[in-house]
Amino acid sequence: MNENLEWLTQAISKPDQAIADAARAHQLQLTKPPGALGQLEDIAVALSSMQRTIHPELSNIHIAVFAGDHGITEENVSAFPQAVTAQMVENFVHGGAAISVLAKELGAALTVVDVGVNATPSSSNRVVVKRIIDGTANFAKHPAMSFDALEKALLVGREIAQQAINDDMQLFIGGEMGIGNTTSATTLAASLLEMNVEQLAGPGTGLDKKGVGHKRFVIEQALYFHKKDAVTALDKLRCFGGVEIAALIGAYIYCAQNQIPVLVDGFIAGVAALYATEINKATRDWLLFSHLSKEPGHRHILEAMAATPMIDLNMRLGEGSGAAVAISIIKHALALHNNMATFSQAGVANKNSSKETQ
Amino acid sequence: MNENLEWLTQAISKPDQAIADAARAHQLQLTKPPGALGQLEDIAVALSSMQRTIHPELSNIHIAVFAGDHGITEENVSAFPQAVTAQMVENFVHGGAAISVLAKELGAALTVVDVGVNATPSSSNRVVVKRIIDGTANFAKHPAMSFDALEKALLVGREIAQQAINDDMQLFIGGEMGIGNTTSATTLAASLLEMNVEQLAGPGTGLDKKGVGHKRFVIEQALYFHKKDAVTALDKLRCFGGVEIAALIGAYIYCAQNQIPVLVDGFIAGVAALYATEINKATRDWLLFSHLSKEPGHRHILEAMAATPMIDLNMRLGEGSGAAVAISIIKHALALHNNMATFSQAGVANKNSSKETQ
Repeated sequence: MNENLEWLTQAISKPDQAIADAARAHQLQLTKPPGALGQLEDIAVALSSMQRTIHPELSNIHIAVFAGDHGITEENVSAFPQAVTAQMVENFVHGGAAISVLAKELGAALTVVDVGVNATPSSSNRVVVKRIIDGTANFAKHPAMSFDALEKALLVGREIAQQAINDDMQLFIGGEMGIGNTTSATTLAASLLEMNVEQLAGPGTGLDKKGVGHKRFVIEQALYFHKKDAVTALDKLRCFGGVEIAALIGAYIYCAQNQIPVLVDGFIAGVAALYATEINKATRDWLLFSHLSKEPGHRHILEAMAATPMIDLNMRLGEGSGAAVAISIIKHALALHNNMATFSQAGVANKNSSKETQ
Repeated sequence: MNENLEWLTQAISKPDQAIADAARAHQLQLTKPPGALGQLEDIAVALSSMQRTIHPELSNIHIAVFAGDHGITEENVSAFPQAVTAQMVENFVHGGAAISVLAKELGAALTVVDVGVNATPSSSNRVVVKRIIDGTANFAKHPAMSFDALEKALLVGREIAQQAINDDMQLFIGGEMGIGNTTSATTLAASLLEMNVEQLAGPGTGLDKKGVGHKRFVIEQALYFHKKDAVTALDKLRCFGGVEIAALIGAYIYCAQNQIPVLVDGFIAGVAALYATEINKATRDWLLFSHLSKEPGHRHILEAMAATPMIDLNMRLGEGSGAAVAISIIKHALALHNNMATFSQAGVANKNSSKETQ
């Protein structure tokens, strides 16, 4: 591996299993039937083991939205024009996009990063311009990017994560914006999972049935075209990726290396998580999964990581929006875990004090 | 119908369809692909039509937890002893229970009502004592309550809802506490839906497989025992019900009559909602469904009302806890609906400005 990429495979510590056990034991003392809070209990235990305390808390959340354009849009694979990527970058920093509204509501820090938008860079000083390329090349005909661009895009993710860590971030959400990026993510997933494109390709921002069929054809052709070159995960990223997807991967791995929990958003973020765990397996231990996207391929991505999402609201927006909504679920889980009375505190009879049924 | 019950069938207005259409049109202008916020869009539209404004808001939430005991516990159908009902009432008002923690977190009003607990009444002035009976009779051998008790229990729900309406409540959550009440609710559901008990009976607070089998047997015997008497919905409630379930029904119907949205909790609240809609069909228009409980019968209850829950976290606690967690989903839905920029405000190209795929 290129020495500029060696950081990717550096060791990742495990969350603390002893603390997880103690947090689970604490849950059993709370005034409710054991397990009655379902997944909320699992979430509280997971955060306990990651924060290494049986009373985890979550007040400092960082959301970074990475934006990049995709040359594959030349193949007519998206319901929206490429110009929307740059327009949405403006919308993010001016507070009008879904993720902007949610970040404000949650009191989360929101960083918007231009990793490779194909338009005049924003004049707003609220956009962090780390542009590596003016959009990827059309991967129907060329590799999406050079190795150099891939290395740099991964490092952008690392750099943004480092800044958030410097600000005492307790949890990281990565979002993405890039017209055409469900096509990129679907190709990446099909290549890594060796699955039929038919099982993974979906409408993205809103293709009709005919449009999805065309997208599938474009993806199948591209997989065939790059067959010899797209061998390792990094090769695949260079051939099919987006710089915003690579930045997500870099951020996820670096968060895991720094023992920061990551809340993974939907389909595209899910593919980034899949590649992050392929590149450095132990990244998986620091990933929480927020929601099941309506994009049909997402189910398979989650299955490949044995991941259980927290919510399923038929969302399919990206930007980190599904993860932002799921933050409230985590906050409820922690409030219950930290603030409910125990059986002895409340003078409530536990299950064991009852006769079992015969 | 007894004249004391005539209020139950008084007319219920429909939510405003024209406002729903306007809210849906507003959603189509927001900077996202149409439908990309999934169920969050539906929730915002529903609240719009109920509040009769395309900018609904939710700051005044009332949670009432109704507590009652069940004589059927004599048949050994619960993993916890009956004394826990009264102990949990204390826990609710002292802030240690799940619903207490969630109500505080949400800034929601919490009212705890003793409708029929079988223990010395609470000495806390924070418990609203409206006790009608000291627990129901064992419905394996007797009707659970008299017609008089049923009428009074329904009125307790109405009275508590009226008080919340006087306080400008914008949304009502009903919770329940009553050891043995999954047995009552399962019997009620099986009787009304004419379903096999096997499809509906579950572990409640934590029965093992053998315990669930015994519970099923008790329910099947009781259904047979009351077969001639349990004809109408109100008959069934008298035979198998709990006073806390009847209070929920009264509250739901009265909220609907006063055009107040109700957020329905899990299995037992779901059975109460089913009976409310059986007694007064148009109640259904004012019900939102919060979560899918792990209790296996809940799925069938929701299906019978063509209801789509917002979350599915394997919760099975009752108390209104699932509904309280789902409040955050509604709040996110409204924040997005009210605060996102439109395409024209943000200068973002809409889907129509793109060429459709060929």
